[in-house]
Amino acid sequence: MPASASRPVIALAIGDAAGISAELAAKALTDPRIREAAHYVVVGDGRLLKQGEEIAGVASTCATWTPGTPLTVGEQPLLVDLENIDPRAVKPGQASVTTGGAALQNFRTILRLGAAGAVDAVAFTPFNKYAMKLALPSYVDEIEVITHETGARGNGREFNILDKLWNARVTSHVPLKDVAKYITKDNVLAGIELTDRCMREAGIANPRIAVAGLNPHAGDGGNFGREEIDEIEPAVVAAKAKGITCEGPFPPDTVFVRASRGDFDAVQTMFHDQGQIAMKLLGFESGVTLIAGYGFPICTPAHGTAYDIAGKGVANIGATRQALLIAAALAKPAGLDPMARRQRFEAVLSSRPMAA
Amino acid sequence: MPASASRPVIALAIGDAAGISAELAAKALTDPRIREAAHYVVVGDGRLLKQGEEIAGVASTCATWTPGTPLTVGEQPLLVDLENIDPRAVKPGQASVTTGGAALQNFRTILRLGAAGAVDAVAFTPFNKYAMKLALPSYVDEIEVITHETGARGNGREFNILDKLWNARVTSHVPLKDVAKYITKDNVLAGIELTDRCMREAGIANPRIAVAGLNPHAGDGGNFGREEIDEIEPAVVAAKAKGITCEGPFPPDTVFVRASRGDFDAVQTMFHDQGQIAMKLLGFESGVTLIAGYGFPICTPAHGTAYDIAGKGVANIGATRQALLIAAALAKPAGLDPMARRQRFEAVLSSRPMAA
Repeated sequence: MPASASRPVIALAIGDAAGISAELAAKALTDPRIREAAHYVVVGDGRLLKQGEEIAGVASTCATWTPGTPLTVGEQPLLVDLENIDPRAVKPGQASVTTGGAALQNFRTILRLGAAGAVDAVAFTPFNKYAMKLALPSYVDEIEVITHETGARGNGREFNILDKLWNARVTSHVPLKDVAKYITKDNVLAGIELTDRCMREAGIANPRIAVAGLNPHAGDGGNFGREEIDEIEPAVVAAKAKGITCEGPFPPDTVFVRASRGDFDAVQTMFHDQGQIAMKLLGFESGVTLIAGYGFPICTPAHGTAYDIAGKGVANIGATRQALLIAAALAKPAGLDPMARRQRFEAVLSSRPMAA
Repeated sequence: MPASASRPVIALAIGDAAGISAELAAKALTDPRIREAAHYVVVGDGRLLKQGEEIAGVASTCATWTPGTPLTVGEQPLLVDLENIDPRAVKPGQASVTTGGAALQNFRTILRLGAAGAVDAVAFTPFNKYAMKLALPSYVDEIEVITHETGARGNGREFNILDKLWNARVTSHVPLKDVAKYITKDNVLAGIELTDRCMREAGIANPRIAVAGLNPHAGDGGNFGREEIDEIEPAVVAAKAKGITCEGPFPPDTVFVRASRGDFDAVQTMFHDQGQIAMKLLGFESGVTLIAGYGFPICTPAHGTAYDIAGKGVANIGATRQALLIAAALAKPAGLDPMARRQRFEAVLSSRPMAA
């Protein structure tokens, strides 16, 4: 176990109240491996967390912190109680403006805590996209909220991590017709570099990155598209020149077969479904989504809110555990003293993020 | 066993001579299930087939037919000996202009036999694309050769079949940047209809077809692209109105997870890698490629020439068997009398297709 003082501090937002998210938060806070990896601040409604503890069948572990009082993050997790949802008003398995609004407020709060340097990493248990949209009709995805709350300008990327295999992408929520225009040498190189850096920060000494092509058969020598020749291959050459262990471009339809056999540690894909089709077939429901590039890691289990098993106490903590362990590995502890941390917490909470 | 007279006649081309293709042809002709399903005409070099029989450790089964002599296709397979490659001049595992040229000539011959109605279906053991290009630098893919040899105009489609799951696609060897322009209601509907028709002809009474979207999350209600709303959904509605059992558009990254669990019999994808990424992870190496829409079925095992095990006698006949059983199921026996068949064979062979 690392010395307590060197452990990172992770802010964990409770996700959608109609699913398994409070149960997962409660289980996480009593899981020995999770507790050993970091210190925790839970952000959400205290009544909801209590309900989660009851569903999970675990003891309550948190001390509630209130602005204006001393704040010390240590062995005992702290709860920042936003008092934003009464679980008695939530129907299990039913997305609503209430569940979406509370989850959104929890999310915005941890993002502001991360951006303010009040915590070293953030994580959240699953959101329900439909509920998020009920609360905020302009909601598109987590990345947009993160970009807005942190003030960052499009430098972040999403990684999908399943066991030891990382999947990164150059483009994400882009219409397929527009993907090719973003496949430039600079964009591909930036993607490879971010993948390499994040993996090294996560403790993978010399990650082996496979770079996918864009076109069928990786363009087949230019017969089915030229991006491999004009953009991707030059990016791979440039990345190698910077000391990155990468190969490609590979045909998109065989690169994951090789990666899943252990030939590579990561696949740098060119667009959303190239990687997602593969990762979901490989069992990504038990994997982790990492959003990196915003100055602090943002992690969440890849699975959803599991409305069908809400309230049953059977939610599997595995993917949430992996998410928190990866967040802890990637965090760079700032080692704030209690007064400095309290000031940052109070600054964030005085401009309390809205639910919608 | 069906009555002999009603069995379809399949022309089987021997593929690339440097790999396992002759061994597979020899094994096929002595496989009881394959023999039971159809009558066979093998097209290729007689010396190469004999070498394949020796490698496979099977007895010779073919009678050689020569133009100008009576032709009766029945229990005993016939060999059309093109005398186009001497196996003593072939280095196992090495693609060459010789192996590509012979395979191409075998392929063109069976296609002309199919187009002439001389046989009811055609199949081939694996080709090596590099060797094909050595023999014919303008070679792009099998579809182009088929289109050229049959005179058909782009109505054909490729299906990938793994166990009971069919994968069809609206576009194939198209640069990714151009895919979206082909995703029109008419093209998607034509694809669904062809899939439905081929599956029914293969004996699947009421195939359940899942239609994939084009964009991430199937466009997410128009946020990440509109083809689902403007083109694909209307095609699904039109297909249903014609009595086809289909659903969609589904998010491309989960549709194969559902299909692989048995929720659907087929996935109609929008482009090459949507289906190929999934099918290859699902083990498509043991599957079958069917090219339909040219008036007669064209089948081949999905795997390649396996240069690494050439000459060892260990090639697995499974995928070739499936290819031939599917060809037999889809064939519509013309019931030619021997004289009519002989005339058609002689017409094709008198204008003997070139090797390049």
